[in-house]
Amino acid sequence: MDQLSTKHLLGIKDLTEQDLQLIFSTADHFKEVINRPIKKVPSLRDITIANVFFENSTRTRLSFELAQKRLSADVINFAASNSSVKKGETLLDTVNNILSMKVDMIVMRHSSPGAPHFLAKHIDAHVVNAGDGTHEHPTQALLDTFSIRRQLGDVAGKKVVIVGDILHSRVALSNIFALKKLGAEVMVCGPSTLIPKYIDTLGVKVSHNVKEALAWCDVANVLRIQLERQQIKYFPSLREYSTYFGVNKQILDELDKEIVIMHPGPINRGVELSSDVADADNAIILDQVENGVAIRMAVIYLLAGGTAA
Amino acid sequence: MDQLSTKHLLGIKDLTEQDLQLIFSTADHFKEVINRPIKKVPSLRDITIANVFFENSTRTRLSFELAQKRLSADVINFAASNSSVKKGETLLDTVNNILSMKVDMIVMRHSSPGAPHFLAKHIDAHVVNAGDGTHEHPTQALLDTFSIRRQLGDVAGKKVVIVGDILHSRVALSNIFALKKLGAEVMVCGPSTLIPKYIDTLGVKVSHNVKEALAWCDVANVLRIQLERQQIKYFPSLREYSTYFGVNKQILDELDKEIVIMHPGPINRGVELSSDVADADNAIILDQVENGVAIRMAVIYLLAGGTAA
Amino acid sequence: MDQLSTKHLLGIKDLTEQDLQLIFSTADHFKEVINRPIKKVPSLRDITIANVFFENSTRTRLSFELAQKRLSADVINFAASNSSVKKGETLLDTVNNILSMKVDMIVMRHSSPGAPHFLAKHIDAHVVNAGDGTHEHPTQALLDTFSIRRQLGDVAGKKVVIVGDILHSRVALSNIFALKKLGAEVMVCGPSTLIPKYIDTLGVKVSHNVKEALAWCDVANVLRIQLERQQIKYFPSLREYSTYFGVNKQILDELDKEIVIMHPGPINRGVELSSDVADADNAIILDQVENGVAIRMAVIYLLAGGTAA
Repeated sequence: MDQLSTKHLLGIKDLTEQDLQLIFSTADHFKEVINRPIKKVPSLRDITIANVFFENSTRTRLSFELAQKRLSADVINFAASNSSVKKGETLLDTVNNILSMKVDMIVMRHSSPGAPHFLAKHIDAHVVNAGDGTHEHPTQALLDTFSIRRQLGDVAGKKVVIVGDILHSRVALSNIFALKKLGAEVMVCGPSTLIPKYIDTLGVKVSHNVKEALAWCDVANVLRIQLERQQIKYFPSLREYSTYFGVNKQILDELDKEIVIMHPGPINRGVELSSDVADADNAIILDQVENGVAIRMAVIYLLAGGTAA
Repeated sequence: MDQLSTKHLLGIKDLTEQDLQLIFSTADHFKEVINRPIKKVPSLRDITIANVFFENSTRTRLSFELAQKRLSADVINFAASNSSVKKGETLLDTVNNILSMKVDMIVMRHSSPGAPHFLAKHIDAHVVNAGDGTHEHPTQALLDTFSIRRQLGDVAGKKVVIVGDILHSRVALSNIFALKKLGAEVMVCGPSTLIPKYIDTLGVKVSHNVKEALAWCDVANVLRIQLERQQIKYFPSLREYSTYFGVNKQILDELDKEIVIMHPGPINRGVELSSDVADADNAIILDQVENGVAIRMAVIYLLAGGTAA
Repeated sequence: MDQLSTKHLLGIKDLTEQDLQLIFSTADHFKEVINRPIKKVPSLRDITIANVFFENSTRTRLSFELAQKRLSADVINFAASNSSVKKGETLLDTVNNILSMKVDMIVMRHSSPGAPHFLAKHIDAHVVNAGDGTHEHPTQALLDTFSIRRQLGDVAGKKVVIVGDILHSRVALSNIFALKKLGAEVMVCGPSTLIPKYIDTLGVKVSHNVKEALAWCDVANVLRIQLERQQIKYFPSLREYSTYFGVNKQILDELDKEIVIMHPGPINRGVELSSDVADADNAIILDQVENGVAIRMAVIYLLAGGTAA
């Protein structure tokens, strides 16, 4: 009877490899469930979950909400815009209010790194981090590595490059943690202004040449360039970025092998990824989305005390 | 075992008269259902529907959502404001993402004419057009003609005038298609600046005199004047519009018969319709709203593979 | 077989003491329900409720929504922002449209005092007032007095002071009505600019000295100072307010007894209430939130025709 080593999902950093494997095998089961005609299981009829989003995120919130409904949990959505947060209430007061309505689990996105960790120390309910600032986005990393495992059989020993703005990316950091724990070799690739100084402490290779990086890897996880960050001075322009780091069919055709292309979405077609690459057979971008629902079902189910199926 | 001739509901233009009759007889059944104490049927327990609204529409979205819940479908709502659309994602990428979460049907409102038709060509799921720009709004036309049929027994042979801004109205265009297919005689009535040039190709009469039009018809479907379009130069002012095309009790009293008054809502009382007319016994405006839920249940049920009850 | 004396919950003013006691004993039952693992009862499977909020209120709306879901009612949410209200539709037309979709109960928040009373006169469905301008907020007063009853055994004979901006507070007015009907002694305390002129007609004591008021009472219900009202000229500044009317540990320690501290939330920590007071054992602020769900379940259940459990 396997169980997670943790009460909360705050980040990948605190998980064991066993936790990751347990989540994956549970997600395998739920992936079957959501491909049946009846996509629901009655597992969590007695659980109420609040999705508390202090940052907008249609895509991630929808995936969590569907995962929760497929598990038959009761769901309430709390969007910080329009809310008492604007009226000067503290984060802890806001969440304690929600919990007093008899809520068992909080899925939270917050712009401040560490916000879910702070919360987990002060409340009884389970906390799932749906992204905290530029820090971690654990369910994204779980679905990304789960997708590699589904595609290539295993993560261990695979060479994975993460291309893009590593400095500001919670997706990159969580992926690095997950990939390392699962025994992959990891490289990050991007302009030097977008690689964090502490990169050496993470045990990953660094490249500033996308062709080299792609020639080395089995899998390329191409991050979204956040257009809203363009104004930052030291950032290469979109056109420069696209010219030097954009992944297109020509570059891929020059490789002597086929690599798996991933992207966390939403895609800027023509910027970080050309359209033909995004739509190619070796791109598993939509599988990632499908796997996201299965992974989130697994995480919620296991945190709520469910045992491996 | 009757079934629709189409996989999607993109517009009235593509439907057969048989499709319309099948939708109507199915809606008759669901109209009974929603007037029972328990207003739900378990028909679509295995269907997940996403309401994807790129334009705000509380009224239509609510009607669809209730129809879906009455059928026991799983429902997720995606509002384009706050969404990845703002982040530069393409329509097809946005919808493919939603579909990858195992969604079976997309109900979409979009400001661009043809957007649902484009979508239907590129995805597997069923598409229901909930309004595409100034093009079509098929469920509105279905509920309007269904309401005429409920009120007068039949649509065939009835004289229906559509009063208002025909040029910018998807409601008018879809109604014209539906009414013609069902054998009604159709007239449009409005200021010449608000009648489209291609009106001659649609097989309808045109009038610029509302008294004449009302004297001719059995049913007047009075469209909403969209206040936000007032700034357009060639538009008559609100006051002019109301004076020359507003339907009020005095005009109706001068007729030697009682006609049915319809309006798709929301009403500008005192502009296109006087308050006493909107509230009169021969106005079936709220019946239209009730019928809207039954019609949308019928459309969704039939598209999902349901057969005539 | 006890039933409420009213079809709507418009304000506390119209309720009998028997109504209040019936709501309380029903809420006692539902408080047990929401503390079970399965927090749901199938009582209102045949009821559809629309939450129609013309003012933003995450907290109150969430509490109503959870109450409705715990009762297994069908729920639709209608937020006035984005809605046809903006398009010039009348309140009655908006609500009649919603009702035509076969909705049995309207929970409404509106900025105009009397809006729910107007509605109740013109529609068949049950109306629950979730706050009408500066007038009443009956479910808040019910949960406040229910919380006193749970904490102190009874409301009759207890001394309750309401501290803050009494002039603009629907919470204060509804609490005064409820407390008086239940036999409590009531005092209001605040700067003279924030005490309404008609206060003498309500049978309550008035104090402008918070120490005196706290020394007198068993329970202090400390209202939120609405930061958005600061600009009003005659208002004491926040700093003045906090200095002269803020409740802090030092003041409470000087009393020779322990009093119950209540607050309707969201709290401005350091303004009307110091942090140590808000978090003290005698503060029942989060119990109020929990009781809010039970009270709203009771009100909705009883209005829908349920009888005392």
